[in-house]
Amino acid sequence: MKIVALAGGVGGAKLVQGLVEILTPDELVIIVNTGDDFNFHGLRICPDLDTICYTLAELSNIETGWGRKDESWQFLTEFKILCGEAWFQVGDKDLATHVYRTEELNTGQPLHLVVQDLCAKWGIKHRIFPMSDDIVMTIVDTVEFGELQFQEYFVRHQCKPKVTKIRFDSKDAPNPTPGIIDAINRSDAVVLCPSNPWLSIDPILSIPGIGSAIKKKFTVAVSPIIGGKAIKGPAAKIFYELGITPTSTSVAEHYEGLINSIFLDNRDGNLVDEIVKLEITPVITNTIMNSKQDKIQLANDVLNFIQRINI
Amino acid sequence: MKIVALAGGVGGAKLVQGLVEILTPDELVIIVNTGDDFNFHGLRICPDLDTICYTLAELSNIETGWGRKDESWQFLTEFKILCGEAWFQVGDKDLATHVYRTEELNTGQPLHLVVQDLCAKWGIKHRIFPMSDDIVMTIVDTVEFGELQFQEYFVRHQCKPKVTKIRFDSKDAPNPTPGIIDAINRSDAVVLCPSNPWLSIDPILSIPGIGSAIKKKFTVAVSPIIGGKAIKGPAAKIFYELGITPTSTSVAEHYEGLINSIFLDNRDGNLVDEIVKLEITPVITNTIMNSKQDKIQLANDVLNFIQRINI
Repeated sequence: MKIVALAGGVGGAKLVQGLVEILTPDELVIIVNTGDDFNFHGLRICPDLDTICYTLAELSNIETGWGRKDESWQFLTEFKILCGEAWFQVGDKDLATHVYRTEELNTGQPLHLVVQDLCAKWGIKHRIFPMSDDIVMTIVDTVEFGELQFQEYFVRHQCKPKVTKIRFDSKDAPNPTPGIIDAINRSDAVVLCPSNPWLSIDPILSIPGIGSAIKKKFTVAVSPIIGGKAIKGPAAKIFYELGITPTSTSVAEHYEGLINSIFLDNRDGNLVDEIVKLEITPVITNTIMNSKQDKIQLANDVLNFIQRINI
Repeated sequence: MKIVALAGGVGGAKLVQGLVEILTPDELVIIVNTGDDFNFHGLRICPDLDTICYTLAELSNIETGWGRKDESWQFLTEFKILCGEAWFQVGDKDLATHVYRTEELNTGQPLHLVVQDLCAKWGIKHRIFPMSDDIVMTIVDTVEFGELQFQEYFVRHQCKPKVTKIRFDSKDAPNPTPGIIDAINRSDAVVLCPSNPWLSIDPILSIPGIGSAIKKKFTVAVSPIIGGKAIKGPAAKIFYELGITPTSTSVAEHYEGLINSIFLDNRDGNLVDEIVKLEITPVITNTIMNSKQDKIQLANDVLNFIQRINI
């Protein structure tokens, strides 16, 4: 089975961790959002790529959902003395990734090769691609501060400003990373992981060519919303602010025309009828992934469904 | 009394630490070698400036003679996994300096303003200037590897290659840092701290305008050589390789025409006659600075001598 998974940060990383336990490196391609990437005092930070990679390499801090486990903060403590402002939390271990990546990018390496190199060094066998080698920035328009880069909104302002619009900014039309359109074309199905549709999956779909390639494929989304709440992150709050009810139905509507099926949590069984009306097949299961077993179980449910319906 | 002190790394920092205990910030200007500066994976490292600043801010690691006290190495451990090579030891705390400085330089700040800013944040009241805002590289020509940047020779190859020549490389003629020629002109005396004459003081003297300004001043050197050995670092070895006997007489000869007097250690009393022949006044005292009291004592000896003879 050939699967392409689209993923953002924490929620996406959890399902991806389940998928890699079942699929071989030949069977899975992971495309990761880079719309949250930003420049931290000259260093290129790729939060979603790092969350996915650290998770697969078992280097991630499971409690916080970001950064490295067994992390220390000596750099940041000193840096704050010099810089005053340091709203982004960069740990000492994490910093090695950023310094190395920044140097490689500055010498002209495209991001996807840097990611490939990092994965090899961390012992990750599955293929992780950034959505693009080009800079694409998720810009959140807010009532209080106007336009903010995503990490400014998310970390610096702790998701407090009221969101009025989200857009994706790039200098020229960004190119999809070499190989990912081909991977989608050759896949048996595409999985949209339970990441924020507006903030984590939409940036990937905004890259010319990716959305249209996915439309031709059997595509399954896993809803990141359970009982009107996001498992993690600002999804539900942003839904409200954009005038959307935070339910899995809204997620399904957002993906209408793109997905064939959506996985909902057991607690959202009441939404089945609404989703069927969208000509999307709802699948009810446990979508909360606390343990590794949960992750594997959900990945298994998704893959079994794909195999049963599609292949 | 207005004093300008020229200093390199560890030996220089020790005497400077003594001088700042006696002189007010108005009375002392410290000019520091930047010929050892280099690019560590995209970060600008200024070893001598950092040694001087960390020493004055009481942040330095006294055992190693470089870097920060209470340092940790999480960054470096991870970085080596990614990079393989990491011959320069960058600690987690130290890294904050490099990331901050690099960003400031990349936004167009001249080095001397970055140093001024760092000093203010570290609570250093005395004025520390880099010799130049321009890049000047100390290049060590070696039998084994040809030309090496100083830190490559010093740290990567641990001073093992045989030195045949030392030169200072810059794109254009480097400018002295704004204000330092004026500070020399207005000084009562110049002190060449006990740093390596060839590797730490010569780069400063190589900046057009600095040597000629110093020549007009009453200038005192403190020899870094005691009993034919360097207190620290590769000075004696390099002397041999360049065909020079490593004695304080050689140091005096090297500075001939520039200095009026040289401070020698008690153990080098036998060199007095040789030095007098050079028309340089030898002063015998204890030049080994182990304790803070030693540093203050030597600084006091130098300043008293200057006051007695010159002012």
